[in-house]
Amino acid sequence: MNVDIGNALDGDLGLTRGDLDALDERVADAHDRIERGRAEAEHGYAALNLPETCDPDAVRRAADGFDPDHLLTVGIGGSALGAATLTDALGSGVDCRYLDNVDPAWVRAILDDVDLSGTVVNVVSRSGTTAETLSNFLVVREAMESAGVDWTDRTVVTTGEAGNLRSMADRHDLPALKVPEGVPGRFSALSTVGLFAAEIAGVDLDALLAGAADEAERLAGSLFESPAYAYGATTYALAERGAATNAVMPYAESLERFAEWFAQLWAESLGKDGRGQTPARALGATDQHSQLQLYRAGPADKLITLVRPREADDVDIPETDLEGLSYLGGSSLGELLDAEFRATEASLAAAGRENVRIEIDRVDARGLGELLYAMEAACVLYGELAGVSTFTQPAVEWGKNAARGLLGGGEFPEADAVTEKRRLEVE
Amino acid sequence: MNVDIGNALDGDLGLTRGDLDALDERVADAHDRIERGRAEAEHGYAALNLPETCDPDAVRRAADGFDPDHLLTVGIGGSALGAATLTDALGSGVDCRYLDNVDPAWVRAILDDVDLSGTVVNVVSRSGTTAETLSNFLVVREAMESAGVDWTDRTVVTTGEAGNLRSMADRHDLPALKVPEGVPGRFSALSTVGLFAAEIAGVDLDALLAGAADEAERLAGSLFESPAYAYGATTYALAERGAATNAVMPYAESLERFAEWFAQLWAESLGKDGRGQTPARALGATDQHSQLQLYRAGPADKLITLVRPREADDVDIPETDLEGLSYLGGSSLGELLDAEFRATEASLAAAGRENVRIEIDRVDARGLGELLYAMEAACVLYGELAGVSTFTQPAVEWGKNAARGLLGGGEFPEADAVTEKRRLEVE
Repeated sequence: MNVDIGNALDGDLGLTRGDLDALDERVADAHDRIERGRAEAEHGYAALNLPETCDPDAVRRAADGFDPDHLLTVGIGGSALGAATLTDALGSGVDCRYLDNVDPAWVRAILDDVDLSGTVVNVVSRSGTTAETLSNFLVVREAMESAGVDWTDRTVVTTGEAGNLRSMADRHDLPALKVPEGVPGRFSALSTVGLFAAEIAGVDLDALLAGAADEAERLAGSLFESPAYAYGATTYALAERGAATNAVMPYAESLERFAEWFAQLWAESLGKDGRGQTPARALGATDQHSQLQLYRAGPADKLITLVRPREADDVDIPETDLEGLSYLGGSSLGELLDAEFRATEASLAAAGRENVRIEIDRVDARGLGELLYAMEAACVLYGELAGVSTFTQPAVEWGKNAARGLLGGGEFPEADAVTEKRRLEVE
Repeated sequence: MNVDIGNALDGDLGLTRGDLDALDERVADAHDRIERGRAEAEHGYAALNLPETCDPDAVRRAADGFDPDHLLTVGIGGSALGAATLTDALGSGVDCRYLDNVDPAWVRAILDDVDLSGTVVNVVSRSGTTAETLSNFLVVREAMESAGVDWTDRTVVTTGEAGNLRSMADRHDLPALKVPEGVPGRFSALSTVGLFAAEIAGVDLDALLAGAADEAERLAGSLFESPAYAYGATTYALAERGAATNAVMPYAESLERFAEWFAQLWAESLGKDGRGQTPARALGATDQHSQLQLYRAGPADKLITLVRPREADDVDIPETDLEGLSYLGGSSLGELLDAEFRATEASLAAAGRENVRIEIDRVDARGLGELLYAMEAACVLYGELAGVSTFTQPAVEWGKNAARGLLGGGEFPEADAVTEKRRLEVE
């Protein structure tokens, strides 16, 4: 993986090479802290050890014997996004769906659309009590029973050491994977949580983890020596100077979900204490006809992160007699996409708008391993530099308690606030 | 449609009812300006006349005789997003795909995945020269020829009065729809541009336009009398007070694409002169486990726009013996989603974070007509209040010219800037 921060310097926000040199001392200290956390497998830091602690054989054993047409992963947030990022980018052959919402019509449509007798279900919840996930799982289980399909033959559980789902797995002798200790959901793509779906979808788990291990080895006490830290330090420095938004714009449809995964990682880890950088999801070249106007000519409060593979398959553009389009004939979609990438990057730079280029060799298992690991390490570094509690999510818990209280799932003071909505309605 | 701005008042950004009362005089003036623009069908303002000027019969005639399994809409930006929003939310039966990017592997995969002999192609470009769209169309046309399918039997053109695509349609006697004058792409969902796909996908065009007409009738000289203006004025007032981001969070999977359509409308119309509000796409309840942490506890620089239908189909949650989950049994996914919606809204309000609730009766043609029209009118009002040139997109043109120059499509000074990339690479 390669990170090019040249266009992050001397733009409208005024970050200079000298600023990065000065920041680099703090990067060294933060790196020491991160390495200590990794050595002691502290909560959160333990996620950066996954390339070595994750056991892909356990995942393979859980998947062994299954050869489904469809995989339904029932999970929400970090229990779905890592797996979805991997199977969207790399999966082939198996139709992977993610029940990560409780929209009734949508859940019903998915269940009607798949052949449940050719489906494997992976229910993912560390606690075994996540309301959305468990509700959806109960609905899926009943749909299987109604269809005459034995759910115990085709359900794999991914959960913590104990709890509801663990007991259910024991009772019915289901394959069960353990969510690793010390790894928050949004950092769990490279663990059992992300890897089961990847294995079912035919992803090369060894190459994925090897890519991640490569980036782990490159973590170093200087931002100029580690792509992950170059990105984390630059985003932090720009945020301090007013880059309130980080727009992540991959130039590959297969990485669209990666931008969503990144958005969770960034928002939930760094959005606290009145601080944080807002992730925005974009997609090249499509959003050149949409968001680029704002990025180039709107407020100077953004970093644009451009992500692309260096190599990809290509499709030739046929010759044409359509007027004014002869320049396209003999070219290719890949060349057009490449020209659009370089034009957007230059367009932003010419307008003084900071941007960073991240490149992987290809959208393959190794490339994804590098990319996901590096973004996680970048996020952890940013959190250290900003002094936030990277691995907690207290604001998410508030809403969970309120919803649970509203549904009669116990006494939660948060539920009382819900009745007090102030109204000013215009119809 | 109903807009509730109660939670936009007296939050961290300090907007008060008195501020809105004061702003309302400017809303009256802006409304006069908008009505003048509509009366004279001025560029951009003409879009707000579509409920009466759009001729759904012309769309029906163009679609007449087609009964495809797949519809491939070849267009980018506003030439795809409106149609995609409608067919994602309301379509049934026909598989609608949008070739709105030039990623080669992705284009190839779509062409491999559909039966071209059962496919209708709608190529959409006002100018007939959009590089991405025309390139993709040339690739699609060749794929049809290779598959022994006569593309002239199954191609519908949507374009301007003259140009490449118009000539091609004349030459091959293809059904051709006219992109209306004075309607920028991002405001064209309710025109021929959005309606052809909707018609093919079985959407009730009359109900859609009737919903839009209802909102048009409610435009009035006070924000307290028009839902569209209530939203436009409130977003403007909050942006002036520091709401740099507008996070649009529908609580319906079928409206996920609506958030993307909104993002284009908002970014491309209002992002200019160093100003504008950055749209962020979110989805309830899923993003409660992701973005909510940032929205609630990050910087006080956001408005959260919560969108939902008042009514929807439901799915019961089965009773369960799983420990601690008995409260879910006998409830429903819809009740859970509703509790999550209210909990999130209250959670944000309790933290002082401004939010607005937008409700339509159902996700149906009438509701979508109301919603899309109201958001367009809100955007136009915001543009008037902010004094920006709502209907232009100069920054998008820069990148187009640069890309075209890079590909040898003519002499464009913008292309010269592309070679000057400043590099600072970390590998």
